[in-house]
Parts: sequence; C-alpha cells; structure tokens
Amino acid sequence: MVFDLLAKPDASNYNTAMRFDVFTLFPGMIHPYLELSILNRAVLRGLLEVDVHDIREWTMDKHSVTDDTPYGGGGGMVMKPDPIFAAVEDVLGESPDCPVILMTPQGRTFTQKVALELSQYPHLALLCGRYEGVDERVRQHLVTDEISFGDYVLTGGELPALSLIDALTRLIPGALGDPDGAMDDSHASGMLEYPHYTRPMSFRGWEVPEVLLSGNHGRIARWRREQALLRTWQRRPDLLEHLELSAEDRAFLEKLKSEKM
Amino acid sequence: MVFDLLAKPDASNYNTAMRFDVFTLFPGMIHPYLELSILNRAVLRGLLEVDVHDIREWTMDKHSVTDDTPYGGGGGMVMKPDPIFAAVEDVLGESPDCPVILMTPQGRTFTQKVALELSQYPHLALLCGRYEGVDERVRQHLVTDEISFGDYVLTGGELPALSLIDALTRLIPGALGDPDGAMDDSHASGMLEYPHYTRPMSFRGWEVPEVLLSGNHGRIARWRREQALLRTWQRRPDLLEHLELSAEDRAFLEKLKSEKM
Repeated sequence: MVFDLLAKPDASNYNTAMRFDVFTLFPGMIHPYLELSILNRAVLRGLLEVDVHDIREWTMDKHSVTDDTPYGGGGGMVMKPDPIFAAVEDVLGESPDCPVILMTPQGRTFTQKVALELSQYPHLALLCGRYEGVDERVRQHLVTDEISFGDYVLTGGELPALSLIDALTRLIPGALGDPDGAMDDSHASGMLEYPHYTRPMSFRGWEVPEVLLSGNHGRIARWRREQALLRTWQRRPDLLEHLELSAEDRAFLEKLKSEKM
Repeated sequence: MVFDLLAKPDASNYNTAMRFDVFTLFPGMIHPYLELSILNRAVLRGLLEVDVHDIREWTMDKHSVTDDTPYGGGGGMVMKPDPIFAAVEDVLGESPDCPVILMTPQGRTFTQKVALELSQYPHLALLCGRYEGVDERVRQHLVTDEISFGDYVLTGGELPALSLIDALTRLIPGALGDPDGAMDDSHASGMLEYPHYTRPMSFRGWEVPEVLLSGNHGRIARWRREQALLRTWQRRPDLLEHLELSAEDRAFLEKLKSEKM
C-alpha cells in the first residue's frame, strides 16, 4: 500500500509490542475502536495495550471542572493545567520515561515517517486536548512532543490519537495477521499506489487490464511500477522529489512529460 | 482556533443542516463517535444526520465476501466492486445527486479549505475503503471525489470519515452551541494560534503572562497577534506565505528574522 515500504525497511527495528496511555475527556470515543478490526486482534494477541484515562477523574472540585475561560478574554474555553498534570503524573510518575505527546494542530505533521520514528518506542502517552486550547503551561512543562494530523479544525484530539494508534499498530510485527504480510508489500515506496483489480474479471463491461491476466510477472511488475509513477506524477508530484528513481523510471517520467507538451 | 477565520468568512454560505451517508465494513467504528460531544448535540438539534450502511449487506454470496485477491498477484486483499456499487446505488439511486467521496491516501489532502468547500453541499456520501485497496472500477465509475487525511497508512477509511464529519459539523451554524460562537473567534486566520492561559494564575510557580491580566485590550490583541506570528514563523513558516499581513505584522516578522541572525 501507499508508503508501505518506507515504513518497513527492517522489521528488526520495530518493537514487538506497544503500550499506549491515552488521556482524554471522552474515553467513550476511544474504547469502541479498540474492540474492532486489527487493533482488537493486536490486543488479543498481547501485541498492543491501550489504557484510557479520563482526565475528569483527576479534578479536585466537586463539579469536576476541566476547563475555564481564557485570561485576556475572547471566546472559547481552555483546558485547565492542574487535572492534566495530575492525571499524567499519577499514571506515569513525575518524570515519565516515555514521550508525552499532545495531539494538536500546532504540532509537527504526522506522516508515515513520523509513525516509523514513534514505533521505536515501546510506550507512548497521548494527550487529547480540546482543539480550542490547552493551557500553555501543559505545552511548556509536561508534553515532550506535539503532533498534528493536518491543517483543519476538529473538536478534540481523540480521532488523531486513534489514527496514530492504528498507524503504529500496523507496524508491530505480527499485528496484521500474517507475520510477514506487511513486509511482503512489493509496492513502490513513497509513491501513490498502482490500481488494484479483483474479481469479477468483467464488471458491467469494465474489464481488468489484460496485462494483469497475462501471468507474465515481469510485465505485471513493470506495469504496476509505471502506473504508480503515473498516478504520483498526476496527483502528488511533490512525492517524486524524495524518491530514488531508476534509469527506467526516469525515462518513463520523461516520456510522460513530453507527451503532455 | 487555528484556521478558524479562514473557515468561517460568512455564515450565510453554510448549510443549516447536513446529511452524510457512510458506507463501511465496520459500522461499529462510526456509531459510537456520533453519540458523543458536538456531533451528538448536532444530531439531537436536527442539524446533522448520519446514516451508516454496512457494505456487507449488499453481498450476493452466502459467505458475504467483500474482498478478494488481486489480479496479477501480490499480497493483500482488494475490495470487490459489486457490493460497493450495489450499496451506493441502492441507497442513493443510480445517479447520486451528491458527491460520492472515497476516503483514500491517494486523494487530495483534506484541509480547512477543503472542509469549507465541502460544507457547501447539504449531502455527502463517504465511502470507507480498506486502505489496502478498492477495485479500480469503483474509483473510475462510482466515486466523484477522493480525499486523503495524510501521508500515512491506516487500516481503513473510517477514522478519516469521522474526522471529515467532525470538521464539517463544526461549520454548521449553531452546531457549536452558541449560535455565534465559532464566528466570534478573533484569532488570526490561517496561522497557528497564540498561547492560551486559564486559572490558576500561578501554577507551580509558572505564571500567566502579565499582559493577559492587564485589562488593556489593545495590548492583549497585539500580544496575541505577535505570539501567533512567532509560533507560525517557528513551526510552520509555509503558512505565512498565504497570509495577508499588515505593515505592523511585517515589521514584527522582520524583527524576528534580524534577531535570529
């Protein structure tokens, strides 16, 4: 799949199991996703452990207040620092020995390369802020990393946290079922993927490309490589800049460019 | 919040309610999120309707098979075209009158600008593929748009679909509670946001910046603007290129640059 080889150059670099501590005001957004699909399979196999902590449990006042109006005025509410510090320190100790990551649109952008980097840690803490804002002192004195899932506004960090867990779980050897499954991907690294076809061979008169039925593995591999190059060139030319291209690849791209003119 | 003004230049451009049809193999990943937070509030207020459709219900064989091995060989499974076409056409008719969006890392990248564009439609269909691949004929003959949530590999399109629904729901007038709430944001558009502080004023000896306690609205506004410029310049200088800057902003940025040298 897309970016897959980039993500799995060497299985021995990866942790054989991962643990996440998720701090959130909405534990109900996290739990259901963990009970389905590969995440659940990884949990059942002992490859993945996700502990979800409700920040509200660490409030001190009787109304369990977790946010308050901002100093200096303006709209919106800001998450108070005290319950967040208390929750993280209670669960992880005063000097956590794992990265404490704030999910925030102000962070560095999550990519497969960042997933690869984070997959080197056996343990990560994820802090789901309301996207409106977390008291700056949390950012300055508690979190060690800030990750953004894109230049858009969400209600909170829960969907980004789940996306991060999903992406990293895929990198745990064995989590995808077949122990070598993810490693076998023959797709070009760092490119958009070539077109996939499965049965039926003819669907409403739309046929599977002849080359895929040819049984000629060399032709199929070349066709897929060219389709991946073509699609990446059409849709995401920025990705081509970071790619190692063979002489054959470069000749194909030159041909595309000349045909366009 | 970040990018907020960009997203809400004029409330009259937005639909007063939105409907989504979500096609997925994992309805259980979609439902729980809709029952919480602002999405649930929007549903209860009649501002948002999300209908979730299990693609598996449109399979024809007794084993309800939705994927199959790829023509041409290689690892992974590909989602078959027939159940997807049947599901979408059964729910939306043979010529859907709304965009049919495939959630795929091959699509155009979702940003707040794309959210703004999509929020002009009263009705969207979201197709959650397995990220490994959907038969190419679905892409060619059924979907009308393809959206990516970033350059990383997820198990499926469900988390991106939820993120899209969350981001668009925020743009429905009234969905955030206060009917003018989102419009009031005085934050600089298209920039990362300035630091937020709330009570307590002193937390573990870390103080709220004095300016925010001054009551001087002009000074506070200027400080926030400069902090937003500073942070954007430090973390995401690419965003500054698309920004309309005042003479004062430009002078501040020049000062930052000269101090760095």
